[in-house]
Amino acid sequence: MIHAQMEKMFNARSIAVVGAKRPDENRGKTFGGIFGALHDYGYKGRLYPINPHGESIMGIKAYKNLLELPEPMDLVIVSVPAPFVPGVLRECAQTGNKNIHIFTAGFKETGEPESMKLQKDIEEIANAHGLHVIGPNCMGICVPEHRIATWMEPVTRVGPVSFLSQSGGHAQDFSNYAGKLGIGFSKIVSFGNALTLDSTDFLEYLADDPKTKIIAMYLEGVKNGRKLFDLVKRINRTKPVIILKGGLTESGAKAVLSHTGSLAGEEQYWHAFFKQTGAVRAHSLEEMAHTTLALLKTGKPEGRGMVVFGAGGGVVVGASDACSRVGLTLPTFSETMQTTLRSFIPPAGNMIKNPLDAFILFFDEGDHLAKTLDLFYQAPDLNMVILSLHMDWLDPSMFSHVARHIKTTCVEHLKDKPFVVCWRQTRDDREIQNQALAFEQDLLNSGIPVYRSFEAAALSLSKLAEYHLSFHFQSDLEERVNSVTPTNH
Amino acid sequence: MIHAQMEKMFNARSIAVVGAKRPDENRGKTFGGIFGALHDYGYKGRLYPINPHGESIMGIKAYKNLLELPEPMDLVIVSVPAPFVPGVLRECAQTGNKNIHIFTAGFKETGEPESMKLQKDIEEIANAHGLHVIGPNCMGICVPEHRIATWMEPVTRVGPVSFLSQSGGHAQDFSNYAGKLGIGFSKIVSFGNALTLDSTDFLEYLADDPKTKIIAMYLEGVKNGRKLFDLVKRINRTKPVIILKGGLTESGAKAVLSHTGSLAGEEQYWHAFFKQTGAVRAHSLEEMAHTTLALLKTGKPEGRGMVVFGAGGGVVVGASDACSRVGLTLPTFSETMQTTLRSFIPPAGNMIKNPLDAFILFFDEGDHLAKTLDLFYQAPDLNMVILSLHMDWLDPSMFSHVARHIKTTCVEHLKDKPFVVCWRQTRDDREIQNQALAFEQDLLNSGIPVYRSFEAAALSLSKLAEYHLSFHFQSDLEERVNSVTPTNH
Repeated sequence: MIHAQMEKMFNARSIAVVGAKRPDENRGKTFGGIFGALHDYGYKGRLYPINPHGESIMGIKAYKNLLELPEPMDLVIVSVPAPFVPGVLRECAQTGNKNIHIFTAGFKETGEPESMKLQKDIEEIANAHGLHVIGPNCMGICVPEHRIATWMEPVTRVGPVSFLSQSGGHAQDFSNYAGKLGIGFSKIVSFGNALTLDSTDFLEYLADDPKTKIIAMYLEGVKNGRKLFDLVKRINRTKPVIILKGGLTESGAKAVLSHTGSLAGEEQYWHAFFKQTGAVRAHSLEEMAHTTLALLKTGKPEGRGMVVFGAGGGVVVGASDACSRVGLTLPTFSETMQTTLRSFIPPAGNMIKNPLDAFILFFDEGDHLAKTLDLFYQAPDLNMVILSLHMDWLDPSMFSHVARHIKTTCVEHLKDKPFVVCWRQTRDDREIQNQALAFEQDLLNSGIPVYRSFEAAALSLSKLAEYHLSFHFQSDLEERVNSVTPTNH
Repeated sequence: MIHAQMEKMFNARSIAVVGAKRPDENRGKTFGGIFGALHDYGYKGRLYPINPHGESIMGIKAYKNLLELPEPMDLVIVSVPAPFVPGVLRECAQTGNKNIHIFTAGFKETGEPESMKLQKDIEEIANAHGLHVIGPNCMGICVPEHRIATWMEPVTRVGPVSFLSQSGGHAQDFSNYAGKLGIGFSKIVSFGNALTLDSTDFLEYLADDPKTKIIAMYLEGVKNGRKLFDLVKRINRTKPVIILKGGLTESGAKAVLSHTGSLAGEEQYWHAFFKQTGAVRAHSLEEMAHTTLALLKTGKPEGRGMVVFGAGGGVVVGASDACSRVGLTLPTFSETMQTTLRSFIPPAGNMIKNPLDAFILFFDEGDHLAKTLDLFYQAPDLNMVILSLHMDWLDPSMFSHVARHIKTTCVEHLKDKPFVVCWRQTRDDREIQNQALAFEQDLLNSGIPVYRSFEAAALSLSKLAEYHLSFHFQSDLEERVNSVTPTNH
């Protein structure tokens, strides 16, 4: 039942916005509110503005209320002041419109008795009439495929990542940030106070959604901990689930209470949760995006052995330390491999170790780069590759040459071995900066994961390894998994 | 003796570059090597190129060798192939030029027997003639005040930070990155293989250097651990010492051996080192720069209590978690303070808690922002302030208004209470991005520490608190400090 309704919402062919306003002329086109956002994004379905005077908006005929609408809505978005929300919900029930996103804030999250009462009221109406409510106090859904979104300039890249977020700001920030990394989205959901639809309801839907291959989540509180645990554990076997849990610290838990009125905390429970579901844990939106990038664009590593290839000196020491700190190893090259490498890499200015500092290979006339990559590919203890580039040490005219080699030679010879690029640039030189950013974008658009720090690259690959190599894929450990008894949250 | 020679090097009025080359016309002006770097930076002293043919370079008269020079040099920079270095050193001895920077690599760090022998040879020459050698295998010194530098486009901002680095790349990267944060430099030293002058020699000099107020260091191996320990412990009482120790992990230690031929490792020793000297520990160049920024631009906090002021929702939860994770607390506002705040902050859309989500104060007609800041200032348990801004939630036309308030109202009312700004921007909107970067630069130029993530802001302030509040300032603990017996490294 819920499943069918969600299918309708995410693929809505008709949307009414109750409380649609005209754009604020003084503040430019980006201040047209939810209606303006849907309109500007190019929503592909039929859009109905509703406001008390029935004034048309952006040339689109408006209606005074839901009763006047010519057809039932796949989704009704409610953006009226909190005290008017109960009335609109009753109108929804009366017109048979069951899929509702309440954008309005000012309910449970304020902690004020009056607002808590208001939340209780709308909960009763929703339950009495079997309404499916996203929110209140949230941004609702964003589906790039159908150009559904309630905020300005949302991500446009369509792809297999879905994001469930208890914070509307995070829904925007994560998808914006990840979008710039070349990550495309299927569904983004900001569910706020979770009146009827909670994270677990959306999770159930995404579990079976063929367009979703990776699920990222930002959680504050959880209503049904057992259900979440079971779902995440099951889904994570086939679709990686990456979770940023807000409010795990004492100060964070207090902030959560003010934000969505949820109870957070219980660090130990969450520690066990991650351990036993195998879900990937993130500590910030950026970390979650970086990890998603690795999971989305690379394959399964067979171990935690790294080869670092690229710029030398202190950078290489830092790269080694960064890898080791997150549990990755840098195995010494085998004698045979060293001998082969020495046969075509001159010792001066290069280091034939791991890290391999021999950037000269990118500018060599022969096929030595390919041969080196083949050696990486064949080595059973070298499971993942980081190519480290210091853009200040290259002339910008060489960037496209290096990019071409990465997109062809590296990709072809490393095959399914996880491979990422990490770059650094510090010189205060506008030309190098702009060229480096273009270089990065070119690689990201070609599906190569690119990071701006070793810390980020190493952490993402360590989480990639953790996901693919962690014990929840080993059936003989089922028993240990089943011994957990999470409480409700 | 060493002190006087260092004084000469850092204030060199005459520099000879042995092995000075003409710029490579094909590679543009930035490939003029060391001589070109000094020339382009605008070195203020007398510059003498030396090359076998005595060809003038960039219009400057050249000499065939040191014997031909018209005056003794304050500094001789040696940039000839490794096998020729012993000969040049003998020439230095012959001409009484005792201050030498050997740029050339290809000595101990290669691990090759021949190169190790070469290092032994130059060590003997240096010792026999009392030469003061920076390097080999290093970038040498950079002194923005006198426009001395051996690399392209070095930092130009003069200031009270000095940086000692065993990596030439890090010397450049750290100063470039920190320079963009508004940090100015007194002396930057890349000392590489440390033939005669080691980190401790430079540290001794900087201890008494009136132009150096903060010392940052990148260390791989250390020759005299006891001396380093004693120096750092002493200096750190008056000038903060921030250290990034490379090669603390097993992989990192292997990389260090290839890089500068030093022995690294011994994590436990370094753990005790930091604990007992009170030196501030950094894990990356960026972290070191962020921490330097806080130490340089803010005062001493009286405790670890934070107030976070700014953008709401998930951002506030993340900010709280980030602070708590690094040992900072977010005390609840006192009843009196809450009552006062409620008297002028409307409850709708704001949160009168800690974090305080009331950005409206920046746009209020009265003096409510000032009043709020006074409350922060007066609260004994609120020791540091983070102002959190989400640039996507502001119209760019408001940025300069906010910046003005930060530079005047915030600075005036928070007085000596440490205060930093942290901003976030994720929308793919070029105008907002450019305006946000200009906003950031404006604040940095005005001496306000600005961070791009809560993690960075919180970590830097936690290190600031650690420096000012750690036990090495309490004399009754002297005994514990003296119980350490570090080994040599």
